[in-house]
Amino acid sequence: MNPSLLDSIRVVLVSPQEPMNVGAVARAMRNFGLGDLWLVAPEPTVAETLEAPLNAKAYHLAVRAEVILDQARRSKTLLEAVQDCVLVVGTTVRSRDVYPGSLVSPRTLTPQVLKAAQRGKVALVFGRETFGLTNDELDLAQYILRIPTAPEQTNLNLAQAVLLVAYELFIGAENPPEPPADQPATRDALEALFDDLERYVLEIGFTDPRRLPYTRRRLRRILHKATLTDPEVKMLRGFLHQSRWYAKHGKNK
Amino acid sequence: MNPSLLDSIRVVLVSPQEPMNVGAVARAMRNFGLGDLWLVAPEPTVAETLEAPLNAKAYHLAVRAEVILDQARRSKTLLEAVQDCVLVVGTTVRSRDVYPGSLVSPRTLTPQVLKAAQRGKVALVFGRETFGLTNDELDLAQYILRIPTAPEQTNLNLAQAVLLVAYELFIGAENPPEPPADQPATRDALEALFDDLERYVLEIGFTDPRRLPYTRRRLRRILHKATLTDPEVKMLRGFLHQSRWYAKHGKNK
Repeated sequence: MNPSLLDSIRVVLVSPQEPMNVGAVARAMRNFGLGDLWLVAPEPTVAETLEAPLNAKAYHLAVRAEVILDQARRSKTLLEAVQDCVLVVGTTVRSRDVYPGSLVSPRTLTPQVLKAAQRGKVALVFGRETFGLTNDELDLAQYILRIPTAPEQTNLNLAQAVLLVAYELFIGAENPPEPPADQPATRDALEALFDDLERYVLEIGFTDPRRLPYTRRRLRRILHKATLTDPEVKMLRGFLHQSRWYAKHGKNK
Repeated sequence: MNPSLLDSIRVVLVSPQEPMNVGAVARAMRNFGLGDLWLVAPEPTVAETLEAPLNAKAYHLAVRAEVILDQARRSKTLLEAVQDCVLVVGTTVRSRDVYPGSLVSPRTLTPQVLKAAQRGKVALVFGRETFGLTNDELDLAQYILRIPTAPEQTNLNLAQAVLLVAYELFIGAENPPEPPADQPATRDALEALFDDLERYVLEIGFTDPRRLPYTRRRLRRILHKATLTDPEVKMLRGFLHQSRWYAKHGKNK
């Protein structure tokens, strides 16, 4: 097993509300060799400010995983927590109509995560206890992970979901897959491309502000499936830049 | 998926102490399609007598799994809980020197469990929160399941252990293996053979009472590996009976 593989995996909790859950997540991570925890905009019940210490209840359940809580990083936005990542994985307990092709099970996704982890950081993003991740948050993810459950009881709590995903990765890391041939682009490079693209499709009237969210999501999905490298992202941004220039200054004007 | 496969799987908790854990176990079972719970000699904190209602705290955590608690059966001994089973699986968090070859991971064991579940009941036996199962209890098991964890934090709580094992079975049941060709013997048939054998090895001086536990364990392991059928159990008991008769009345006497 390559322990550094698991070191490349980051667990991101978006606005957790219950400090005990945060502690139980840290413990579940420790069970399966993960250590990098990031809290995005935790609720005041977990920490009063981004700098304030975590509520002591978090430590009650973090048996032998206190160090993970001590070292957990925090940010206001999800983008900050994932910007250096080459793969972002969202999670959901619901079936999401808007992402039919992106929903995958932990068993299926594990090799992808372990491949990417050989090339950079991977973020596993878990949503609020109450309603999970928003669609805007899920838009940052290449894949959306859904843990299969019996229809009678689909609800897993936050720490159980982290436990099952971490377990799959731990088992998978014993025989890791080959790394991908190309270095995938980081999240911040991709987001810069998506920003350019969004602006451009409005400019050229390919869509309008009302339909933009739908168009945006479809374009993101196509480009997520392409697993772009940094040079490819640069090339596509150059292409958009040139299109815009031509539209303004081209020979027919 | 064949839902009746999961119906054949029984979760047995030996002397659970914390009612909340029993509730969390029921919920984890429900998440992954299991429903048959058996409590062996629960501590008074969980139920004051074998007939008394379960402590209300168990129901707090059994969200949408109350029916599993309502229908949970109870017994004084582990043998009663597993006597009708064609496969008994113990669990441990420690490495057990006495069972080197019987320790298996959930991923490895899942096909065996699902095969056996096509032929009869399978018991998954989980021990006390404090010290797990005794060696005598583990002697009833054909396999001993150990969930692999990172060395830094090996301790999983009871409900987490049930959750991970149930998850593996649920995933495995989507593509179940072929059933075994032969109908395996039930636990009570095997125990009758082991009783005969134990008496016999003492009678013939193959071992003495001091070394008996060791001999017993080795013989059990051999016969567990053989996955005996009921006719085979009958034949072996007949063989022992005949040996004993011959030793007493044989032609040299």
